[in-house]
Amino acid sequence: MADAMWLKADSIRAALGETVWYLEGDEDARTIRVRREIVEFLRQPLTGNADEATVLLRVLQTVPGVTSPQGYRIHDISNGRKAIDACDGTGLLYGFYAYVRAVMTGTVCECVAEPDQQIRMIDHWDQIDGSIERGYAGESIFFGRMDSNDHSDFRAFPERDTTNPFRGDFARLESYARLMASIGINAVCLNNVNVRGDATRLIVEPFLSKVTHIADLFDSFGIRTFLAINFASPKRLGGLSTSDPCNQQVRAWWAQTADAIYRQIPAFGGFVVKADSEGEPGPMQYGRTHADGANMLGEALAPHGGIVIWRAFVYNSQQDWRDRSTDRAKAAWNNFKELDGLFADNVALQVKFGPMDFQTREPLNPLIGGMKHTNIIMEFEITAEYLGHQIDVNYVLPQWLTMIDTDTMIDGASTDNDDASSQVKSIIAHRGPNTCHTGFAAVSNVGMDDNWTGNALAQANLYGFGRMCWDNTLNAETIANEWLAQTFPDASEKTIGIIRNILLTSNAVYEGYTAPLGVGFMVTPGVHYGPSVNGYEYDRWGTYHFADRDGVGVDRTQATGSGYVAQYPPRQAAIYEDVNSTPDELLLFFHHVGYEHRLHSGKTVLQHIYDTHFAGPEAVQGYIKSWENVRGQVPEAVFDNVAQRLAQQLDNAVAWRDQVNTFFYRMTKVPDEHGRTIYP
Amino acid sequence: MADAMWLKADSIRAALGETVWYLEGDEDARTIRVRREIVEFLRQPLTGNADEATVLLRVLQTVPGVTSPQGYRIHDISNGRKAIDACDGTGLLYGFYAYVRAVMTGTVCECVAEPDQQIRMIDHWDQIDGSIERGYAGESIFFGRMDSNDHSDFRAFPERDTTNPFRGDFARLESYARLMASIGINAVCLNNVNVRGDATRLIVEPFLSKVTHIADLFDSFGIRTFLAINFASPKRLGGLSTSDPCNQQVRAWWAQTADAIYRQIPAFGGFVVKADSEGEPGPMQYGRTHADGANMLGEALAPHGGIVIWRAFVYNSQQDWRDRSTDRAKAAWNNFKELDGLFADNVALQVKFGPMDFQTREPLNPLIGGMKHTNIIMEFEITAEYLGHQIDVNYVLPQWLTMIDTDTMIDGASTDNDDASSQVKSIIAHRGPNTCHTGFAAVSNVGMDDNWTGNALAQANLYGFGRMCWDNTLNAETIANEWLAQTFPDASEKTIGIIRNILLTSNAVYEGYTAPLGVGFMVTPGVHYGPSVNGYEYDRWGTYHFADRDGVGVDRTQATGSGYVAQYPPRQAAIYEDVNSTPDELLLFFHHVGYEHRLHSGKTVLQHIYDTHFAGPEAVQGYIKSWENVRGQVPEAVFDNVAQRLAQQLDNAVAWRDQVNTFFYRMTKVPDEHGRTIYP
Repeated sequence: MADAMWLKADSIRAALGETVWYLEGDEDARTIRVRREIVEFLRQPLTGNADEATVLLRVLQTVPGVTSPQGYRIHDISNGRKAIDACDGTGLLYGFYAYVRAVMTGTVCECVAEPDQQIRMIDHWDQIDGSIERGYAGESIFFGRMDSNDHSDFRAFPERDTTNPFRGDFARLESYARLMASIGINAVCLNNVNVRGDATRLIVEPFLSKVTHIADLFDSFGIRTFLAINFASPKRLGGLSTSDPCNQQVRAWWAQTADAIYRQIPAFGGFVVKADSEGEPGPMQYGRTHADGANMLGEALAPHGGIVIWRAFVYNSQQDWRDRSTDRAKAAWNNFKELDGLFADNVALQVKFGPMDFQTREPLNPLIGGMKHTNIIMEFEITAEYLGHQIDVNYVLPQWLTMIDTDTMIDGASTDNDDASSQVKSIIAHRGPNTCHTGFAAVSNVGMDDNWTGNALAQANLYGFGRMCWDNTLNAETIANEWLAQTFPDASEKTIGIIRNILLTSNAVYEGYTAPLGVGFMVTPGVHYGPSVNGYEYDRWGTYHFADRDGVGVDRTQATGSGYVAQYPPRQAAIYEDVNSTPDELLLFFHHVGYEHRLHSGKTVLQHIYDTHFAGPEAVQGYIKSWENVRGQVPEAVFDNVAQRLAQQLDNAVAWRDQVNTFFYRMTKVPDEHGRTIYP
Repeated sequence: MADAMWLKADSIRAALGETVWYLEGDEDARTIRVRREIVEFLRQPLTGNADEATVLLRVLQTVPGVTSPQGYRIHDISNGRKAIDACDGTGLLYGFYAYVRAVMTGTVCECVAEPDQQIRMIDHWDQIDGSIERGYAGESIFFGRMDSNDHSDFRAFPERDTTNPFRGDFARLESYARLMASIGINAVCLNNVNVRGDATRLIVEPFLSKVTHIADLFDSFGIRTFLAINFASPKRLGGLSTSDPCNQQVRAWWAQTADAIYRQIPAFGGFVVKADSEGEPGPMQYGRTHADGANMLGEALAPHGGIVIWRAFVYNSQQDWRDRSTDRAKAAWNNFKELDGLFADNVALQVKFGPMDFQTREPLNPLIGGMKHTNIIMEFEITAEYLGHQIDVNYVLPQWLTMIDTDTMIDGASTDNDDASSQVKSIIAHRGPNTCHTGFAAVSNVGMDDNWTGNALAQANLYGFGRMCWDNTLNAETIANEWLAQTFPDASEKTIGIIRNILLTSNAVYEGYTAPLGVGFMVTPGVHYGPSVNGYEYDRWGTYHFADRDGVGVDRTQATGSGYVAQYPPRQAAIYEDVNSTPDELLLFFHHVGYEHRLHSGKTVLQHIYDTHFAGPEAVQGYIKSWENVRGQVPEAVFDNVAQRLAQQLDNAVAWRDQVNTFFYRMTKVPDEHGRTIYP
């Protein structure tokens, strides 16, 4: 029986008390879903007589303050009764969940709300053999055998019997859709962006009919279903001799394919595409641009209202460590900046928040802000690829919110929409030719494990991502408090306080004991968990630290380095160009400095490395100690799960401490100022 | 059509000319095989009238100078006719192939010959899914689908349909058996020592009947078939609650299992066992010793003349790099020395030539010589796990012969046989309670690739291993010349000279551009091809170099290090204990020294590293150039194969050069004395 996460029907029913619901207005799949949520999920009375109701759910022609079909208004009406009003079934659904949340969190329930970001998307890197690329919570909820959850290695992608790769666990999928809708997620891509083998066939029969069953379910929860496609499909599925996006037969094939999809799934969202990156096919092999490729797909989807989400995570994965002039951080800009303005209205460019790859600390990807006439979807990774594999506790909202709150420092630049301030979240929401096609997307962290996310505390990141998308003004603590109140409705304030403290400090703790000062990576190659300081140092992935006996860090300045800094607007570039104005936490991302270099903190770089790496295991030991006080206060499965993960995390933190400290001690032979043990 | 390797029937027939054969004496499977070799393989006349014959093959009661059933005498008899005499069909078979070899190599053919080592064995690390652990030449010749050779990753061991895992390609197996018999191999283990999944079932029906077909074929070529077993078989196959070797039910189960095997395969060789190492089950989990485990199996096999080959490659693969007192090099000795004298007569301990794991350079394993009352089989690795994956050319006989020629420096130690000199090859052959059960074994390098060994030149190692086992006095050049004459019978002396030069220099060239001065490893983890200087440095495998800004190497002395040196006899220990008497090529295996330390060569350690790593790619470029001169002089498939591999080898040598040089340059900031490019 899967964990209920933050929607515990019994607790909600108890909190709602004597509520009698009533629903009125034009019906659609969403309003019927609301009815079913009341009757089937909450098992609460839904009356046919408005006068008997304590909460009225109303789809109205107009609702004061509500301009979007996704918005809602919750307010008191006569006799202490509440009304949840919306102009559309989708808004009503969101209002319903918001009301439940308000009741569970004891917050004020008088509001008008509309989402800050239009696209609020979850990308699954699920593979049709049931494995999940970078998944740490079991097998795919969409694919695999009904009874299977054996965590198979995603890298194998074996040629299994794939006549029906779908798991077909619709009880699980309904729970998932409910959870996602409750936090405002409105788009889900079912399959991995690396579309290989039979996964290529998901867009055609017989697999398409199976996708339809899932999409229909999701549609009732206001979620549009997307599929990741293989750009070479016209050749691989269509029998054509080319997949050139400028070829008329290719365009016709995609148009026909899209038509067939929409005949079955009218609310189909569109395609997600990783092209010309890390070995995947794309338009460049035909001498065409990313815009040519994306627009060709956009043309096929446009008649149906579908969109193309084109990933900007494009780089040459054959970099040579010996060549200091190339810099992977520059790749997204170099590949896409010149295409700004050339993408169709229904194409969105999905851009990772940083220029590298979801590290614990990165500067903002300069394409965000740099692309002025392109719909942008900002990409996050909930699954903890580099952030502890959901073994180490890592509540990542502090980092994400830092990224969306970043000031791009764009001065009076021309934009398509004058509403946009220079803050990232505003830039994303208000720029681009069609702001309906902008927003945030993130890679899912869920799988078939009983608690969905491997570590029960990692549920908070899934919850937090949705909430962050909807309301860009929430802070990390508020989101944590919401999640805690709903997830542990019976816990004492003391218990909540203990868990809150672990959550809110965990992101900084993890950053502290892994790669220092923004230099990134230093993880075990391939696996991306645990330390390997030199693991990627001489490899082809462009992820280096350049440590030698004198210093460490990557010089990305214009004056003496790779010149990456020049991709930022002048005010920002000036800050990063100067070693003295670069923030400590990004120092080694932008500069190669001596170990004796003094940080703004007053410490040397070397002593900072030692200190943060000694602090890591100490903090985790503190977590273990404080978690003991939670025993009996949270469900036993949660207690045991987190206790076991914390023990593993301590091993990991110790491994990081000792390997990183020894690595730099061997480089410097400078002992720790405080005489702590560093192995020689 | 598989390559004929060193047995090219057409060329042999031509070289034999007007030979007419005659065979006399008691018949057995081997004599019938000789008849078939003449008639079916060579397609030569075999007369029933001795007077018509030019070569007489005779099984006689006594043959002057021949004391072993494996020995033979070749000599001239009346009228220019030759006689090949033996006391047994097996000796006759060896005499037959020796005669063919003599004709092909143009050598003197008047000799009495007996093997120096009694067991001359090939171990296959083949898995029943068709993959080969550490295989670099395609899939298994024993297992897999008839038409399959897709080089699957050996690490996956997927649960495939294994109702019949046997490939059933008996044409290939007959060729293989012929090739092995022709170089004197008399034992083959079919399956990987890591016996997992359904491979455990090879010793019982229905798989046993399939093994029988192979074993019958091999028996006709004088080859005894062995199987690697899983020590936990009584539990896993027999349904017992334990696999404790002292449990009577367990002993009875093994006895019954052995009985059943020998009913089908009277010439079955016995079991190969890897126990209590790298995660495999073994007697220690029941509180028993390796001797308990091995002797229990020996008891089951003894009534049938079978033997147990127990691997001494036992170590704790959970070593902690932080703990300098533990040393994997000490593991074999620590696990087995105290058991000397306790193993049964029909048990042999299989000991790798060095204390680590088939590195390019290791000192002798001190168990060889140290075990005075135990049958020892010395283990080699033909498959080029650490030696270039049969991509890089590496004719390894120079290293092997160095190992078997090593003086153990054992002084007047008591032995079971006074014949033994203190040289390794003599110690192996003449010590132990039953010298019939001692010898050399090596891991196979063959697979389903057309040329058997991936790189055609790697055939020379397979050939050379067999020849080295039979005749311990051969040198590397002689063996190379034999192989060249038979493999390229039509090539000019100039062509032979070019290939000979590549072969004879290749082992030193490869050693030069990989890990320096005996320190070992520095390979890409898992894969074991290509450089990763720090790849294993902080891992659990006990394979470290301890490089820091001042020096490099592993202190294994008694005075200041791990104390491993103490495992050697006093004269040898004294040499290794002193940094000044330790040979250069093993310096970093035994000592941690500063980069400025002067070798006996006069160079500093650092400059030696730079020089050998610059020399590597230069030598490979030389190979590429000289190989061009072979175009048209060898079969096109061979030319293309080697040319393509040499190009890959150059890439590899350059990668090693640059990563190793940069690693040490970053440590020292000392430039190359000759100003060559080292990337910073």
